[in-house]
Amino acid sequence: MNDCIFCKIVNGEAPSMKVYEDEYTLAFMDIAADVDGHLCVIPKAHCESILDCDNETLSRLMNTVKKVSEHLTQNCGYEGVNLLNASGKAADQSVPHFHIHIIPRKENDGLDTWPKLPGAKEDIKTVFEKIKMI
Amino acid sequence: MNDCIFCKIVNGEAPSMKVYEDEYTLAFMDIAADVDGHLCVIPKAHCESILDCDNETLSRLMNTVKKVSEHLTQNCGYEGVNLLNASGKAADQSVPHFHIHIIPRKENDGLDTWPKLPGAKEDIKTVFEKIKMI
Repeated sequence: MNDCIFCKIVNGEAPSMKVYEDEYTLAFMDIAADVDGHLCVIPKAHCESILDCDNETLSRLMNTVKKVSEHLTQNCGYEGVNLLNASGKAADQSVPHFHIHIIPRKENDGLDTWPKLPGAKEDIKTVFEKIKMI
Repeated sequence: MNDCIFCKIVNGEAPSMKVYEDEYTLAFMDIAADVDGHLCVIPKAHCESILDCDNETLSRLMNTVKKVSEHLTQNCGYEGVNLLNASGKAADQSVPHFHIHIIPRKENDGLDTWPKLPGAKEDIKTVFEKIKMI
């Protein structure tokens, strides 16, 4: 993917602050500067989101998310993490290379990481009937 | 876990609207009624969060998150998903049984699912030096 910024980071063609790296995955500082310690974890091989990511890649990605989250809470003074992902342009995904955001948390850090949601428009049972798979 | 509401849902001791179920995982409607189609996906075996979840359980959980996300976008008229997780009380985790929220999205649905973050307090390079693993 010649024009993908995250592929460029993987290939060393774009700079990044790499927090963790293995054969298949990479964790680096998110430069948004919106909160301390904001990280992105990505698979090195390009896929767009969870919707086109094979299960093996997904497992490896999540193992790295877990490994980094454990490091943050066991070794770095954090006490929890929020994990955030946008899959698809409709979900406000910015960079179209699958990435999971890690927001490290501390007790009473004053952050409110839950989005402001407007309230359901449809009856929950109506939606349930439309989407149930079993 | 006798007092865990999600374990009770797994065991059928508490009601839920089950969207997907297999031997190891369960997806059900989140009753918060904060947005249409809000789901939670959980491992059936109790663990608290990504921080104490073994890799096999994590892989199975994420495979189900992917399966349900694909169903929503391929069969239910949605065009993307947001995935949200809180791991640890410090991260505002409400129910202490590992769960991944799925928020189904449509183009121009007007939702803003990115949290309002206050801006970093520390220099990013200072934080990077503290948390880097390589």
